[in-house]
Amino acid sequence: MSTHPNDHSLLRTPLSRRLYHEQAAVLPIIDFHSHLSARDLAADRVFANLTELWIAPDPYKHRALRQLGVPERAITGDAPDEEKFQVWAAALPRLLGHPLHPWSTLELARYFDITTPLSAASAPDIWRRTRELLARPTHSARGLLGTTPVACVCTSDRLLDPLDDHRRLAGRSDVPRVLPSLRADDALAVQSPEFPAWVRALGEVTGIRISRLADYLAALEDRLDAFAAHGCLLSDHGLDTFDYATTSEPEAERPFRRALEGGVLDIGESRALRSYLLAALGASYARRGWAMQLHLGAQRETSSRLRNQTGPAGGYATIGQHTPIPLLCRFLDDLERRQALPRMLLYPLHPGDYAPLATLTGSFTEEGVAGKLQCGPAWWFNDHLLGMRQHLDALSHYGCLSTFVGMTTDSRSLLSMTRHEYFRRILCDYLGEQVAAGRFPDDYDLLADYVRRIAYDNARTWLRLPLLPYSP
Amino acid sequence: MSTHPNDHSLLRTPLSRRLYHEQAAVLPIIDFHSHLSARDLAADRVFANLTELWIAPDPYKHRALRQLGVPERAITGDAPDEEKFQVWAAALPRLLGHPLHPWSTLELARYFDITTPLSAASAPDIWRRTRELLARPTHSARGLLGTTPVACVCTSDRLLDPLDDHRRLAGRSDVPRVLPSLRADDALAVQSPEFPAWVRALGEVTGIRISRLADYLAALEDRLDAFAAHGCLLSDHGLDTFDYATTSEPEAERPFRRALEGGVLDIGESRALRSYLLAALGASYARRGWAMQLHLGAQRETSSRLRNQTGPAGGYATIGQHTPIPLLCRFLDDLERRQALPRMLLYPLHPGDYAPLATLTGSFTEEGVAGKLQCGPAWWFNDHLLGMRQHLDALSHYGCLSTFVGMTTDSRSLLSMTRHEYFRRILCDYLGEQVAAGRFPDDYDLLADYVRRIAYDNARTWLRLPLLPYSP
Amino acid sequence: MSTHPNDHSLLRTPLSRRLYHEQAAVLPIIDFHSHLSARDLAADRVFANLTELWIAPDPYKHRALRQLGVPERAITGDAPDEEKFQVWAAALPRLLGHPLHPWSTLELARYFDITTPLSAASAPDIWRRTRELLARPTHSARGLLGTTPVACVCTSDRLLDPLDDHRRLAGRSDVPRVLPSLRADDALAVQSPEFPAWVRALGEVTGIRISRLADYLAALEDRLDAFAAHGCLLSDHGLDTFDYATTSEPEAERPFRRALEGGVLDIGESRALRSYLLAALGASYARRGWAMQLHLGAQRETSSRLRNQTGPAGGYATIGQHTPIPLLCRFLDDLERRQALPRMLLYPLHPGDYAPLATLTGSFTEEGVAGKLQCGPAWWFNDHLLGMRQHLDALSHYGCLSTFVGMTTDSRSLLSMTRHEYFRRILCDYLGEQVAAGRFPDDYDLLADYVRRIAYDNARTWLRLPLLPYSP
Repeated sequence: MSTHPNDHSLLRTPLSRRLYHEQAAVLPIIDFHSHLSARDLAADRVFANLTELWIAPDPYKHRALRQLGVPERAITGDAPDEEKFQVWAAALPRLLGHPLHPWSTLELARYFDITTPLSAASAPDIWRRTRELLARPTHSARGLLGTTPVACVCTSDRLLDPLDDHRRLAGRSDVPRVLPSLRADDALAVQSPEFPAWVRALGEVTGIRISRLADYLAALEDRLDAFAAHGCLLSDHGLDTFDYATTSEPEAERPFRRALEGGVLDIGESRALRSYLLAALGASYARRGWAMQLHLGAQRETSSRLRNQTGPAGGYATIGQHTPIPLLCRFLDDLERRQALPRMLLYPLHPGDYAPLATLTGSFTEEGVAGKLQCGPAWWFNDHLLGMRQHLDALSHYGCLSTFVGMTTDSRSLLSMTRHEYFRRILCDYLGEQVAAGRFPDDYDLLADYVRRIAYDNARTWLRLPLLPYSP
Repeated sequence: MSTHPNDHSLLRTPLSRRLYHEQAAVLPIIDFHSHLSARDLAADRVFANLTELWIAPDPYKHRALRQLGVPERAITGDAPDEEKFQVWAAALPRLLGHPLHPWSTLELARYFDITTPLSAASAPDIWRRTRELLARPTHSARGLLGTTPVACVCTSDRLLDPLDDHRRLAGRSDVPRVLPSLRADDALAVQSPEFPAWVRALGEVTGIRISRLADYLAALEDRLDAFAAHGCLLSDHGLDTFDYATTSEPEAERPFRRALEGGVLDIGESRALRSYLLAALGASYARRGWAMQLHLGAQRETSSRLRNQTGPAGGYATIGQHTPIPLLCRFLDDLERRQALPRMLLYPLHPGDYAPLATLTGSFTEEGVAGKLQCGPAWWFNDHLLGMRQHLDALSHYGCLSTFVGMTTDSRSLLSMTRHEYFRRILCDYLGEQVAAGRFPDDYDLLADYVRRIAYDNARTWLRLPLLPYSP
Repeated sequence: MSTHPNDHSLLRTPLSRRLYHEQAAVLPIIDFHSHLSARDLAADRVFANLTELWIAPDPYKHRALRQLGVPERAITGDAPDEEKFQVWAAALPRLLGHPLHPWSTLELARYFDITTPLSAASAPDIWRRTRELLARPTHSARGLLGTTPVACVCTSDRLLDPLDDHRRLAGRSDVPRVLPSLRADDALAVQSPEFPAWVRALGEVTGIRISRLADYLAALEDRLDAFAAHGCLLSDHGLDTFDYATTSEPEAERPFRRALEGGVLDIGESRALRSYLLAALGASYARRGWAMQLHLGAQRETSSRLRNQTGPAGGYATIGQHTPIPLLCRFLDDLERRQALPRMLLYPLHPGDYAPLATLTGSFTEEGVAGKLQCGPAWWFNDHLLGMRQHLDALSHYGCLSTFVGMTTDSRSLLSMTRHEYFRRILCDYLGEQVAAGRFPDDYDLLADYVRRIAYDNARTWLRLPLLPYSP
């Protein structure tokens, strides 16, 4: 009855199946944008039960349960873990079509060998079996990560993170390579009431006295050096509203000083300062050979009630407005004119942006770099079969499919590595479907090369990861 | 040759056929947003011919005929009814792909047992046969409505409607339950030159002297009480431009008084007053346990020529701009913070809004209510196979398919109940297709439950309709 | 191995194949919006090799090569022609999904009888064989154009073009009918530093002294007369940003005089003057019975580096913002209220505009004209299988498929006439697919009529071309 766990799941043509099983399934995984906890890996955390591992830390599940009307007590409240699991199990059959359904099915199959569909009826038995397994060394944090052939994970780390856990992980042979990547939002949060205190902390960590914009930039560079020393190769900015304006250093100096003194910036000041910082950081990434990620178009101001109740990552956000293409072009052009445009990954949240942003990837290029600008992969609310197919369709027709750097989970969960299997099945299904419809040539070797590039080699070379080319 | 009238129409998989014939086809119809005439039902109107029943009152057909270049004389002008029918019959084969084609085919089949495709050649015979049938009691207004298993219709009624026809219908056993629903646009038409006169009429009907905003709200409440007394359970607002701004009563008071005196409000005043009233009404609906419908994004200012010629519902509107998500979120949040957010149906007209609005349904939730916010169903220009499929895809992947309250016709025509058959076939085809592609589990009982919920039970429970659960 | 060159390419159902081979394949081609060089045709230009014919003048290929990281030297630089061909050949297999892939495959097959896939390996042989063929009279400019059954081409010509080449071509029996069409952008380029000089040149060509707006309009009319004398039937405006505002002649007079004196107009002045001129030209086209084309939503300000390097048509543009529907409606209504609305083709670049613009085609109509407003065909970055299918879907469901005037290449290349084959296959595949899914009736004669209309007859009659109806 279950959708996923058979060899041919989602693979509708013989060619798709051959591409998946001969090519995609055996490739190592590069998860270049992940929110895995380096601390859990360093400590080799053990999980008491599926609720602790699977439900408690997952805002996607909380959101779905709330949408079904489940009381908060049984989601994030004081209900016992087993009851929370039972509630989730009862909900899953009501989520057909939602990515949680195939994800959950695949996770239970791959990590716990459970192919019975999860439901209210099957929950007690699955609860018991998984609790037993979670007590074993195969199911510690490192054990779980080792279940799939992960070559490299890039975690997402705040600028002031001391990166101690990465240091502890660096030497180990029983863990895949875990590199930090920079989540740089703190540096641009100039409207936050916490900004002055954060800048003081930055000053203390770096030993730089910060009173002018130039000091601030120097301190940021110091932290970027620290990240680089731990192997960081990419950064990330969450830009819910992309209101960029070309800004000179003198124009940014005054708003910076006001922000530093705890002043409330007006819209124009904030835009100027954030635009200046975004461009300055972009140029620094370019100098360092890092890639820059922009996550565009989330709407996080929705329900105040849920934000107050569940905190900033509580699963209540939504898709916001389209990306303003003219402003994005100005930003990219400003950097390119200074010869300071890094390789860049643009993740739009509005699926209506796929066509324009996939097209844009042909407008900024660099000799010797295939696919300097990337659109995607399908992100957050788009991270499902429909979103991935729409994204692949956009890349194919408007961008350049062969240069795509492929899937990343953007997930907090150790079990999410199975989403690479989900993506690879959808990719191979897509390629086989194109051939069946007479759109792509029926050339196995050529398509196998596409699979290897998209599922592994493009990410490896584009991100300049210290990994070997894949050889079977 | 005709597409529809066979058992398997639109049902491409064996599972789809089984789901349709065993489940969907036998469920009663709840048409919760309809423009049927309570007067025609109360009077049991008899129609002289198909032009009078089918063409004269249908702006969709007028629009299509104009697009084909047909002279207005033969559409809404002084041509004889038979000529108008002949013109429409000749046009239909040129409308493949347009929803009018399957609708018309299905309507002729279900109400008149005509399976010959309508065309210039078949028109004279069909004209004759249908005219004979229309003279029979089976084809009066009530007869036609009784042809399909309608359990409940919610008509769309203006605030000052005395609801006499609903009163007359309430006691009858030979008519399905016909409840009023509130079309509240008059109450927000503060820029209309007719607003002061309309407020005076409201004052007379309610016996409340209206000079301040508080009086106005009291008078509106009085009318809402009257609607509630007739079983009203939902309201409806057509918001072509959603320019909401948080507004306090004092900020709305002055624009209200100006509007009352016939003054012309500027954009800011109008926005303030309408925003205040929308929120005040929303809170009232919430207190009453009513659902609130927002119809978003129509562009009605198109051809002045056609508006002057055909009146406000003349079929010349189009799809306007995207819904401004941040403003919509602010409106919902303002209500929720006052614990005054009603269950809500959001109907965007721009199909590019499906993904963001389906996502938004996960951002505002309530314990004990499954799917408190709803996106859709596919509305007006989207009310066809492509629109319905895109909408189902958006709900599945971005929202929550299992909580969807399903189809409503939004139609003036007694024959439109067959659109529920059209929708149900598309729904069952969609579910079967997902299974065939390995996306949904091959679990008949589970999918049958989805069909029953979406086609009947969700609407019944979500709207709190006084109907029994369906039992075969 | 190659996708295209077999009889059934892209045709997935027996009905699709029959429609294509019996109907579409034998119809003459009307290419009503082309950038073919009348000069090359008048001179019957001979091409030395495939690089000169196929690569050097094609910004699409340059763009794709840059995106793959190819050095500019081997694209538009000083590398030898054979090396450039080799580079392009090596790149093509990496462009699966991009329209360049099926286009290139089809062009090699139809004009050079080459069905071996182009790649690094096959390039030397194909280079040699095509060079031999290009030396023959069958492969001169006229020879190439004569390979497909072209009935009529409308070139795209600037207002000051003397149209000498069209005059030379007019009498020839060995060339299809080549009519000029007006690319009117120069007339609206009021913010360009070259505008005053261009107006002086206009004055010289027409013999009209231009000091007021009325003089300017008179001179423009004079040039429109000249175009009309050469058989021009349609005009074209590239409107990257559609910021129309209703503007009277007095409101436009002052900005015109400022622009004429080389003054820099502010946004409001520029909008006023361009809006006035657009409406004035629209009215003139309507008087003349011409059709008006609007190309909407390109973003040309992307990489300054590439613009400086490659010039204004260098392939670095992208898809910009959505079309502002309210402003577009105002423009159309302003013209219609003056009884001066010409037949119009709206080409949106953002594929998210297909549904609203296809819907809009039902909002402005004229007695006796089927499909007065047209949306599309799929343009520029959308000119591929996905874009064409989305466009056909939008026309079918939101507009009126049967009145669609069909494909045009918008291309500079003589080989692009094969894109009509590509489109016709996709159209026939689409129709057959609808029948197979039970959406369209299985009525061969009716669908054959659709194919003939969309592939030939609608363009002929809608554009009022001096061509005979097609008879087999």
